[in-house]
Amino acid sequence: MKITLALCSGLVFLGGSFAAFGGSPVPPAPNGIEFPAGYQDWRVLAVSHRTDNKTLRVILGNDAAVAAARSGKTNPWPDGAVLGKLVWKDATASHWPAATVPGNFVHAEFMIKDTKKYASTGGWGWARWKGLDQKPHGKDANAAQECVACHTPVKGNDWVFTAPAPMPPVAK
Amino acid sequence: MKITLALCSGLVFLGGSFAAFGGSPVPPAPNGIEFPAGYQDWRVLAVSHRTDNKTLRVILGNDAAVAAARSGKTNPWPDGAVLGKLVWKDATASHWPAATVPGNFVHAEFMIKDTKKYASTGGWGWARWKGLDQKPHGKDANAAQECVACHTPVKGNDWVFTAPAPMPPVAK
Repeated sequence: MKITLALCSGLVFLGGSFAAFGGSPVPPAPNGIEFPAGYQDWRVLAVSHRTDNKTLRVILGNDAAVAAARSGKTNPWPDGAVLGKLVWKDATASHWPAATVPGNFVHAEFMIKDTKKYASTGGWGWARWKGLDQKPHGKDANAAQECVACHTPVKGNDWVFTAPAPMPPVAK
Repeated sequence: MKITLALCSGLVFLGGSFAAFGGSPVPPAPNGIEFPAGYQDWRVLAVSHRTDNKTLRVILGNDAAVAAARSGKTNPWPDGAVLGKLVWKDATASHWPAATVPGNFVHAEFMIKDTKKYASTGGWGWARWKGLDQKPHGKDANAAQECVACHTPVKGNDWVFTAPAPMPPVAK
């Protein structure tokens, strides 16, 4: 995981984020977790629609997470797995009133599995970057406690709400 | 597009689909469109929730489609773009009753942009494979007319219902 994050961090400096983010890379979360640059290119694990806060979500996974999901090895998820959740406010489809579609982008939040490194927070590192400008969420290193508290009902599911969506096996 | 489809078709024979699909590759659609093997690895364009037929969807794109979406060049979409929609029946999240999550997998359906090849159907090739065993949908080469009829309200949007979801620019 450290290697992956180091690579992502490196890519931030090497790549297009200077232009994309006004000349500066996306800052790490207040708990020190590096921004997982390039998560928009990760593969899909699931989707969800929360009617309580009226948001649509897509849950993406890095390569380790996708491999774990496709082999059914998600309780526990393996070290190195990273889950990313992109959240949008509900909007109504312009040409299909009965369809809810993504409105404003709310945030992208991540769970990074490293049993040893994040032993104090369920074996996961937790971080969130808000808005299209990806502002780090939280005031200090304890920000993850908010995540852990909400995820406590799924402690027995390795702290993960998401069940990978059923998909046909990849034919290639 | 022909090259891409030929490649996909080739991969079906080269890859794991024999095991995945009981020893035979996924058959083409009745209109001759080849199965886009590996679409599960494509990137996310959007999600949607249809309350009329109680289904959740994720809309994926091949590389050409993702590049078009990220550069805002989607009306028209460029030749070579392929849009894939994965559809699941609604289910309720086991640990979050106010969340709708993917239930049974319904089908994967595709729009393949080739202005010349598919001039008679809006410049798009249309195909659908049903269920986890990916059975081709439709009885004959006219099956696409069903798709075109449903998409006619968005003829002015290059026949596409999906608006790419707003996402932060990729920082890498």
